[in-house]
Amino acid sequence: MGVSNEGLPPAFLAELGSSLDEGALLTDPVRIAPYLTDFWSLSTGASHLVVRPREVAQVQAVLRACAGHLVPVVTQSGNTGLVGGNIPDGSGRQVVLNLERMNRIREVASSGDYLVAEAGCILQDVQQAADRADRLFPLSLGAEGSCRIGGNIATNAGGINVLRYGMTRRLVLGLEVVLADGTLWQGLRALPKDNTGYDLKQVFIGSEGTLGIITAATLALAPKPRERHDVWLAIETPEAGLELLALFRNRLGETISAFELIADPGVEAAEQAFGARIVEGRHPWHVLVTVAWSFREGLLGHLEGLLEEAMAAELVVDGTIAQNDAQRAVMWKLREGQSEAMTRKGSVWRSDVAVATWQIPELIRRCDEVLPKVRPGIVVFPFGHLGDGNLHVNVLAPAPDRLTAEDRARIQDALFEVVASMGGSFSAEHGIGRWKRPALERLKDPVELALMAKMKGALDPMNLLNPGVITGPAPLP
Amino acid sequence: MGVSNEGLPPAFLAELGSSLDEGALLTDPVRIAPYLTDFWSLSTGASHLVVRPREVAQVQAVLRACAGHLVPVVTQSGNTGLVGGNIPDGSGRQVVLNLERMNRIREVASSGDYLVAEAGCILQDVQQAADRADRLFPLSLGAEGSCRIGGNIATNAGGINVLRYGMTRRLVLGLEVVLADGTLWQGLRALPKDNTGYDLKQVFIGSEGTLGIITAATLALAPKPRERHDVWLAIETPEAGLELLALFRNRLGETISAFELIADPGVEAAEQAFGARIVEGRHPWHVLVTVAWSFREGLLGHLEGLLEEAMAAELVVDGTIAQNDAQRAVMWKLREGQSEAMTRKGSVWRSDVAVATWQIPELIRRCDEVLPKVRPGIVVFPFGHLGDGNLHVNVLAPAPDRLTAEDRARIQDALFEVVASMGGSFSAEHGIGRWKRPALERLKDPVELALMAKMKGALDPMNLLNPGVITGPAPLP
Repeated sequence: MGVSNEGLPPAFLAELGSSLDEGALLTDPVRIAPYLTDFWSLSTGASHLVVRPREVAQVQAVLRACAGHLVPVVTQSGNTGLVGGNIPDGSGRQVVLNLERMNRIREVASSGDYLVAEAGCILQDVQQAADRADRLFPLSLGAEGSCRIGGNIATNAGGINVLRYGMTRRLVLGLEVVLADGTLWQGLRALPKDNTGYDLKQVFIGSEGTLGIITAATLALAPKPRERHDVWLAIETPEAGLELLALFRNRLGETISAFELIADPGVEAAEQAFGARIVEGRHPWHVLVTVAWSFREGLLGHLEGLLEEAMAAELVVDGTIAQNDAQRAVMWKLREGQSEAMTRKGSVWRSDVAVATWQIPELIRRCDEVLPKVRPGIVVFPFGHLGDGNLHVNVLAPAPDRLTAEDRARIQDALFEVVASMGGSFSAEHGIGRWKRPALERLKDPVELALMAKMKGALDPMNLLNPGVITGPAPLP
Repeated sequence: MGVSNEGLPPAFLAELGSSLDEGALLTDPVRIAPYLTDFWSLSTGASHLVVRPREVAQVQAVLRACAGHLVPVVTQSGNTGLVGGNIPDGSGRQVVLNLERMNRIREVASSGDYLVAEAGCILQDVQQAADRADRLFPLSLGAEGSCRIGGNIATNAGGINVLRYGMTRRLVLGLEVVLADGTLWQGLRALPKDNTGYDLKQVFIGSEGTLGIITAATLALAPKPRERHDVWLAIETPEAGLELLALFRNRLGETISAFELIADPGVEAAEQAFGARIVEGRHPWHVLVTVAWSFREGLLGHLEGLLEEAMAAELVVDGTIAQNDAQRAVMWKLREGQSEAMTRKGSVWRSDVAVATWQIPELIRRCDEVLPKVRPGIVVFPFGHLGDGNLHVNVLAPAPDRLTAEDRARIQDALFEVVASMGGSFSAEHGIGRWKRPALERLKDPVELALMAKMKGALDPMNLLNPGVITGPAPLP
């Protein structure tokens, strides 16, 4: 096979040139560069070609050409992934397929039940299209202004509303997928119920571009809440957070949309970084809760009743209910700006782990015990989605101290071991990508690894779709 | 390979005998008979052996023996399936694996977040275990007193609460599965969030015993509603039903648990059969709605306000809110007893189709047009889950007229063609089994059929798990 000095077969490039418009093919290294580096600038891959199709037929043409010439392809949409699954490896042999130009909302059902969005739609644009139809698209996460729905689906994104609305998987009614050989599977259905054989969309959701390329999706919309309250509560212990969660579940049931737990070091850093605060004094732990329902009024009374009860039981030390959108925004800035605020204070390492909800206090206790032994001098500042058992156990080495790559690896190994011993997940939201594949291979049951390899072998037998990610033979060096 | 006069290899029987207790192996034709006939007594298969393990290790031993001796295995739990997927074919070569003795609730989380149930647990027992923990297990369907959770998961069962809580798939947090070669995949996690590679449980849910044998599941529990109302409304047209659904969604949002549409012929038959009625006079269509929330009071006022509005807009002609459990039971008997009541009047044919919710009036209109042309003399009596776009378009030939097998086949072909032309599903809840496989092969996109075959080939390469169901080579005659 002839290989040009750009590392790609000339016949492959010629075939692409005949199927795609010139704007679809980026070969200029300067223009390509932004597509090769991840969101946190932790890693840069190599590629000589970024393909940006506008139509599903073009995606098919790319995949046919890749299959015909055995060229591996890495798919990305918003390029906001956090595990290196959306950037090419260092070989220079992989083509980047970027779907940002496939960004149309193809349909919004007049009934308001669903909409059809192409993979390149920015999540916020999908949210806004739902809003214009007086509905809610509930997926919401920090990167929503730049992440794109194809990536959200390919990674089964989580976010702050999972407790009520589930992960992205639950919001997908149908998919349009281009398979490894360029065949189109047209599965854009709008059916909440369909038991006609295997539910194939489930296979592609969360598969990180390794089994097929998602080009569009039918997304379920929810009724739009009309009354919403956000409340910030200071508490003494993670156990109190869990008791408070049980109390909220018991009293406010289905109206709980988000229930976040945050350790004080991160709150203090965010208060300093953003010049804002909610409660006076310092308290070791904080809880941020959103409740909402479809009615125009009445929820506030229920919430206030619950808070009185929680105060009387000494579960809650201090707290406040947001009175307007500005206060609401401050609360969420103090929650979502944790990593950014801590990064200003030194060297930060991030994680994303999950256990059963009731195990969260134990997880925190064990992390506090184990991690500072592994790397003295660090501050552990966990925060995350208590209601989902999902904690970001993050770590700061205050400047001028710095975490080396070896420190990060050792901290990660120690944390993942704690989580594995508790039957938990070492990647609740972010996925595996390239970076967590060694952990996957070390920590997962070999039976499960074998099942994943079988799925990969069945749907991508030539290992051309995102090779090196999750499973399948490692790409040639 | 030696084959005994019972059609099974003696070495296979010897291997089973050494792994399982005597009570686990049924060979007496009289004792076997109930395991060979489907719920509606439409079809009877043949088998010389029913295996009833008590432990997952015994299930593994059965699968290892089947794999070693190339004996195909049909799995069943409650044997209430409606598509012939849980009874053996007529060859006499298939072993029946019945999980009814694996019926322990292994754990109820003290947090109330989940429970772990074995495949043979009766659905009602799972509901009651949740109830004792002050939680709701929301899966609810006509057969709940005899169907078993393993079958519910293997068929991704639906039921009356799908609108609010989703199909069975959404309620499953983890699975324990025995694979085709007897290997155990221990995936009984209790993690709402876990993106560590492919979500393998999704592959087995709804696969009807063709990819692996589900032996236990971790099931998510929901907060228990404290105020519930059931309301029966008489309306003039299916379009009014759809407008009413939109009004309910707009006003009562997340509190809607069930929204059923029922044509009058079925209601009239049920009134006669069960000696009960809700509204005076005859009206062409009826709607049965359940609303519920976690609060103790206040929902009734919202519901009454909505009904006044619906009456004023002439959407609703007559109606009543159930005042007690007895009235609630009558409403649901008139809904769920439709098929039973109609069977007393003559010859009934059943279906289970779905379209996008907004297409329901068109589906009904086209069925009314097409079906009586295909088979004159029939009464079409659709009913079902309007909120899910899922309608049971059932048909009666009043006695002494009788539907022949040919009539049924022609009615089914005509209905499925209508549904396919609308992009709908010809099996919303019931699955494919053996009986709908010809329809699957005729109506599905060949791309999708090929994907299903690939999954089957990857996970059950010897085609021993429920051969003939959904996909895979047809078993030898």
